Amino acid sequence: MIFREIKRGSSSGARLGRLYTRHGPVDTPVFMPVGTQASVKSLTPGELHELGAGIILGNTYHLYLRPGHRLIESLGGLHRFMNWHLPILTDSGGFQVYSLSQSRKIQEDGVLFRSHVDGSLHMLTPELAVEIQEALGSDIMMCLDTCIPYPAEREQVIQSTDLTTRWAARCLDARKKKDLLLFAIVQGGMDWKMRCSHTERLLQMDFDGYALGGLSVGEPKEMLFEMIACSRPLIPPRFPVYVMGVGLPEDLVECVDLGVDMFDCVMPTRNARNGMLFTSFGHIVIKNARFAEDERPVDPECTCYTCRNYSRAYLRHLFMARELLSYRLNTIHNLHYYLGLMAAMKDALARDRFPEFKRDFYSKRQ
Amino acid sequence: MIFREIKRGSSSGARLGRLYTRHGPVDTPVFMPVGTQASVKSLTPGELHELGAGIILGNTYHLYLRPGHRLIESLGGLHRFMNWHLPILTDSGGFQVYSLSQSRKIQEDGVLFRSHVDGSLHMLTPELAVEIQEALGSDIMMCLDTCIPYPAEREQVIQSTDLTTRWAARCLDARKKKDLLLFAIVQGGMDWKMRCSHTERLLQMDFDGYALGGLSVGEPKEMLFEMIACSRPLIPPRFPVYVMGVGLPEDLVECVDLGVDMFDCVMPTRNARNGMLFTSFGHIVIKNARFAEDERPVDPECTCYTCRNYSRAYLRHLFMARELLSYRLNTIHNLHYYLGLMAAMKDALARDRFPEFKRDFYSKRQ
Repeated sequence: MIFREIKRGSSSGARLGRLYTRHGPVDTPVFMPVGTQASVKSLTPGELHELGAGIILGNTYHLYLRPGHRLIESLGGLHRFMNWHLPILTDSGGFQVYSLSQSRKIQEDGVLFRSHVDGSLHMLTPELAVEIQEALGSDIMMCLDTCIPYPAEREQVIQSTDLTTRWAARCLDARKKKDLLLFAIVQGGMDWKMRCSHTERLLQMDFDGYALGGLSVGEPKEMLFEMIACSRPLIPPRFPVYVMGVGLPEDLVECVDLGVDMFDCVMPTRNARNGMLFTSFGHIVIKNARFAEDERPVDPECTCYTCRNYSRAYLRHLFMARELLSYRLNTIHNLHYYLGLMAAMKDALARDRFPEFKRDFYSKRQ
Repeated sequence: MIFREIKRGSSSGARLGRLYTRHGPVDTPVFMPVGTQASVKSLTPGELHELGAGIILGNTYHLYLRPGHRLIESLGGLHRFMNWHLPILTDSGGFQVYSLSQSRKIQEDGVLFRSHVDGSLHMLTPELAVEIQEALGSDIMMCLDTCIPYPAEREQVIQSTDLTTRWAARCLDARKKKDLLLFAIVQGGMDWKMRCSHTERLLQMDFDGYALGGLSVGEPKEMLFEMIACSRPLIPPRFPVYVMGVGLPEDLVECVDLGVDMFDCVMPTRNARNGMLFTSFGHIVIKNARFAEDERPVDPECTCYTCRNYSRAYLRHLFMARELLSYRLNTIHNLHYYLGLMAAMKDALARDRFPEFKRDFYSKRQ
């Protein structure tokens, strides 16, 4: 068994589940901190563990370019390399090729691109994406997909989505290690009919889970939820459902309500390094002058290491002085907030009180 | 009592001692990690404590400019601000004015300089240096001194040293908080007669300890040791002796042998961030390509968190990818090495085996 639905909310699609991987089970709904280059920026695995992270995400594109998947494999795989012994999900590299590489050309065979590190030319095929992820020893691998910009012409959406389907089939064929899970990625642009038909086509193949991709690319928020709401119910309860690259705290709440099990986003970690801190009452921008002499913690209700030990004034000072500790203390706080939010949702689901949780969540932020 | 000599080596000036401060005792010889801007870069106070740091150094110049000593005072002092509850020594700001500020003019009254942060004009006087350090709540304050370049004209050395004496007297007069210790700084350039006479003049005043300043400014290594060797014996055993800004591991060993009790240096922390790692067998430069696939820890004999958990290959990857964790893991290793070296010297002194320790120390590095 790969996934077990433990409990379903009585008033929505929200559910508790458990995902089984080679490095142990993961309770869902779950948020996966992003560890792009074999490190969740500024933190040790011990800190991630203390924060309650049960699974992290690694980036295939980055690790392929530097230090190289064969090197990581020769050193015992990504878990050992980075000293993280809980599950790791790796993306396929498709999104980074799209967003980071200097130039790229999508062909039937794969994506031709230049490295953002040294300008070298590479061809990422579905087979290579699987090969890299298997070499890394990822617990959950993602199929190589094509990224569709927003807005996009209907013809482009159709072609890209069809190509994603053919690539998904090639990823399945390329897989050698059957104990590593492989998820397919639903595309279809912002057209609900195409989303639904793509979901159904991928469901006909033998994947371990399904991701809803190509979302959070600049579309209006209602459109994001509409795309999830139309395709999510088509996926049977025995599969984990993952929405990629989402999002703000309120997005996570809404997506859980729609029945999404898994999330990843750079927002808590990247925004931490930019001085934006999430709290139960909204976010604060720590460099703001009004915090210069503020001896309160970031969030008086927060129990994270940062809030237990430091004032807003100190955090502002560290940020203004560009001290390395700033990025770290801010990251601890933001991940504590995100992971705490997921824990609170799981708790509400266990007590069948998700609607009450949602009401409280929004009322605090006003 | 401010300082107690606990044990003196039978074959050299090396000694064990204990320095008593408002935040508890400090066993000497001691190395003080540098926490320039109210943070030892990348580390938490908890990590410093685990590494065995018993006292850290803060920079008056930096904290005066940002966030300001009055702000730190209003928030309960530097200890509370940065969540460090063991002793803190602060320098006087003189060296940073000399090395960092955009322009400076030394006058009888003090140093006129422009901030390296925003170009604003400031006058640092001996009285202000004490006022800032008292506001910070420093356990050990340093007198404002003048910095003499190397090489320097004899006339400049005489004038600067005399001015340092007059400023030392003004610092003593300016002191209001008698429970904060105040150390004088011996200057005298690289002339042993002037070093000795300056030491004697400062000893006639009522300081709690003595620092040997103006060293490690580019002079040959023998000259550094000569200046310490000539002036150190003039200082009675009841005073702690501090050599500022020194240095390499072998410098610490030699200076302890000459009877020095206290040290600070940015080398372990700054070099860590530049990828230079200290070990019992010398140093390694982690970005070197020969470490790319090296699965050994930095130092197989080292018991630090970094060496217990990570390969040279991973540390090289983090450094090449400019990951924040790189600076932190490297800093942990280097401070563990420096603080471990001090602990080993204390242990050797306690067993009256300092000469044997020195022999082993050098034989390992060949």
